[in-house]
Amino acid sequence: MQKQVFIGLLGLGVVGSGVVKMIENHREELSQKLGCDVAVKRVLVRDMNKQRHLAMHSPMLTSNPDDVLNDPEIDIIVEVMGGIDEARHYIRQALQNKKHVVTANKDLIALHGQELLEVANNNRCDLFYEASVGGGIPVLRGLTDGLISDRIQEVMGIINGTTNYILTKMDEDSISFDKALADAQQLGFAEADPTADIEGLDAARKMAILARLAFSTNVELSDVETCGITNISLKDLEYGKQLGYVMKLIGLAKKENESIEISVQPTFFAKEHPLAGVKNEYNAVYIKGEAVGETMFYGPGAGSMPTATAVVSDVMAAVKNMLLEINGKSNLIANLDKKITPADQRFGQYYVRFYVKDKAGVFARLSQLFHDAEISIERIIQRPAGKDHIAEVILVTHETSLKNFQTILQKLAEMDSLESIQSHYRVEGVKKQ
Amino acid sequence: MQKQVFIGLLGLGVVGSGVVKMIENHREELSQKLGCDVAVKRVLVRDMNKQRHLAMHSPMLTSNPDDVLNDPEIDIIVEVMGGIDEARHYIRQALQNKKHVVTANKDLIALHGQELLEVANNNRCDLFYEASVGGGIPVLRGLTDGLISDRIQEVMGIINGTTNYILTKMDEDSISFDKALADAQQLGFAEADPTADIEGLDAARKMAILARLAFSTNVELSDVETCGITNISLKDLEYGKQLGYVMKLIGLAKKENESIEISVQPTFFAKEHPLAGVKNEYNAVYIKGEAVGETMFYGPGAGSMPTATAVVSDVMAAVKNMLLEINGKSNLIANLDKKITPADQRFGQYYVRFYVKDKAGVFARLSQLFHDAEISIERIIQRPAGKDHIAEVILVTHETSLKNFQTILQKLAEMDSLESIQSHYRVEGVKKQ
Repeated sequence: MQKQVFIGLLGLGVVGSGVVKMIENHREELSQKLGCDVAVKRVLVRDMNKQRHLAMHSPMLTSNPDDVLNDPEIDIIVEVMGGIDEARHYIRQALQNKKHVVTANKDLIALHGQELLEVANNNRCDLFYEASVGGGIPVLRGLTDGLISDRIQEVMGIINGTTNYILTKMDEDSISFDKALADAQQLGFAEADPTADIEGLDAARKMAILARLAFSTNVELSDVETCGITNISLKDLEYGKQLGYVMKLIGLAKKENESIEISVQPTFFAKEHPLAGVKNEYNAVYIKGEAVGETMFYGPGAGSMPTATAVVSDVMAAVKNMLLEINGKSNLIANLDKKITPADQRFGQYYVRFYVKDKAGVFARLSQLFHDAEISIERIIQRPAGKDHIAEVILVTHETSLKNFQTILQKLAEMDSLESIQSHYRVEGVKKQ
Repeated sequence: MQKQVFIGLLGLGVVGSGVVKMIENHREELSQKLGCDVAVKRVLVRDMNKQRHLAMHSPMLTSNPDDVLNDPEIDIIVEVMGGIDEARHYIRQALQNKKHVVTANKDLIALHGQELLEVANNNRCDLFYEASVGGGIPVLRGLTDGLISDRIQEVMGIINGTTNYILTKMDEDSISFDKALADAQQLGFAEADPTADIEGLDAARKMAILARLAFSTNVELSDVETCGITNISLKDLEYGKQLGYVMKLIGLAKKENESIEISVQPTFFAKEHPLAGVKNEYNAVYIKGEAVGETMFYGPGAGSMPTATAVVSDVMAAVKNMLLEINGKSNLIANLDKKITPADQRFGQYYVRFYVKDKAGVFARLSQLFHDAEISIERIIQRPAGKDHIAEVILVTHETSLKNFQTILQKLAEMDSLESIQSHYRVEGVKKQ
């Protein structure tokens, strides 16, 4: 007799509907691949009376979480309701009821992933969350299975579709941030309240999750230095283009000498770098390993069906484990000590744009400042001063420490003839000579 | 007491040395991650007296396969000797001795993968071969785990580093195929006998493996229509550039209406397509799924350490299975019926370049031919005729069936005023209007 596995769903929004659709449409193949039938049994919704596109048998729906979490026939809980406190509570309850959990909730996993994995382990249950980073891209599995043998040195991700869409449009159509954001909202690539996306918080959550898996270290959200894209000007994109760069919001996690640097910030990428070509709403995670070298995983970072693919693949993994009776054996809890790299040990190239009074001796003074700060300059563009005798200077440093760069920003700001520092960004992917 | 797993290695060439190095250097981490120590015990080599870079305890080496295959302490055999008959024989023997097998041997898996997987299953042993396609890129796992829930529609791969290196150099440095090949040989990106690479056979083997996993169908090497890159001229690359294309040797496997099309051929890619940016010796596999949409896995397709990463990750998977006592449960044997798509059901865009006598009525005749063949033309470039009154025509069709395209090639060849058809290539990745 073929075993039957029932799933309980928490939430029936964009991702939840995709999961229901996929499990129903692919039921026969799932059953073939698993040797066991899989079906959704109950779905927790907030509002029973809401009109839905999805045709659901109404007895499936419930607004009482216990109908899902305490149903003894349900083996796997899929949490796609979002939010933190309620979801955390339900997932704990599910695990304590010996139900395996699959979640797409990056906010929750970024904040409470370690705690929930421990509850899962204590109850010999699976807790999988592939969909929480990179939507349909199987990048967490890439880290935990495919590249498990290697020492990961660096993870760089374009892991927020909204900001990548906005930056692509600004760059290609030469439109302002505000216009690009409005367009993205109209097309459904940005939410009505886009704060978490454009301020980099969404990307920061995903980076915490990626860094934890890459380095087996309990990185917390507060370890991620975060800067969004709201201040990016067309002018900088234009100068970047002249220099052969394209602007991306990048999550960076780097391990050197047992110490971890982790940030989300707008970054200029050399056009030759694989991440530079990732456009529109697409995501990509670039992983550098000591032995494997450079790899990249590319695909749709959001959307109903792509995210459902990751969720259902996780469900299938849990079902396989059930059939083999090995659940709870593959939850990875980060266990190495955490050490965050100080600013004088973080190295990078930087772009800075500023205005100075165009008077005698100014450039000699500038050169002296950079020389004293031990920063050598890779490229410099000076735009001739107009009637106001104010010159615009764009400058790219060679690799230097973040601390040195912070010092030079300070020194520039103190310079008599400086009008204003307009912007500064990290530069990545320039081929070393 | 911690369990000890011993590995027997067949072969100590480029990949074998990488595997030994990795297992030795990462021994502590491997042991931490697995909860069990892993070490290489014996290594089969052809010539005991060969000078080796690698410092090996000489008692480890043997030229007698039975010392490895019949050692009761050895649990896992890593086959990195290459070749077909001998390797097949040893792997069968290892599996029959209840040893798990990890291999990087694409030639063998392409030809005898199904048979060996059956032997593995019958003996409840693992047979893993991630390293056989895409070197360090964990793309087989991507298909079998991460995207398992989806229906794969198309796999396109740049899966031969040698030819990608040659095509990149031809394109970027405007050098001939012969010169680029000679350079590649000097730099170690092409072998002394490059036939299997440049004729597309190496890529065809990898496509057979990918297609089998993507479609769960026993595709054989002979199902892969194969064409290499030896006839590609700089002239075509130049015209391609004008049209916004770049040339790649592409393995294509496509499933439509339960029917499979599979080929390796030089293909023009629109510059916007993610595969167009994959340069030099890098590999990438682009996978299109019904639900997930477009994904791509990118990385180093060969080399000692990248390939060793894939091999050792497979070894770790086998060790984990040993500890959980679930070996032999994840070998996937393709089990769906095979149907190969006929030429009238294969659709694509095509580029063709030819010479015609530049006389009255020729273009009307050409238009008529294409109209009769039901092929509409997307773009056409006509190069003015010189003193010889011979015009060069470059033409890109809209999507049409391969059969229609073969017909038009035939009709063109029969045309009175045709001088010669110079070349024709498939075109991919052009955005549909």
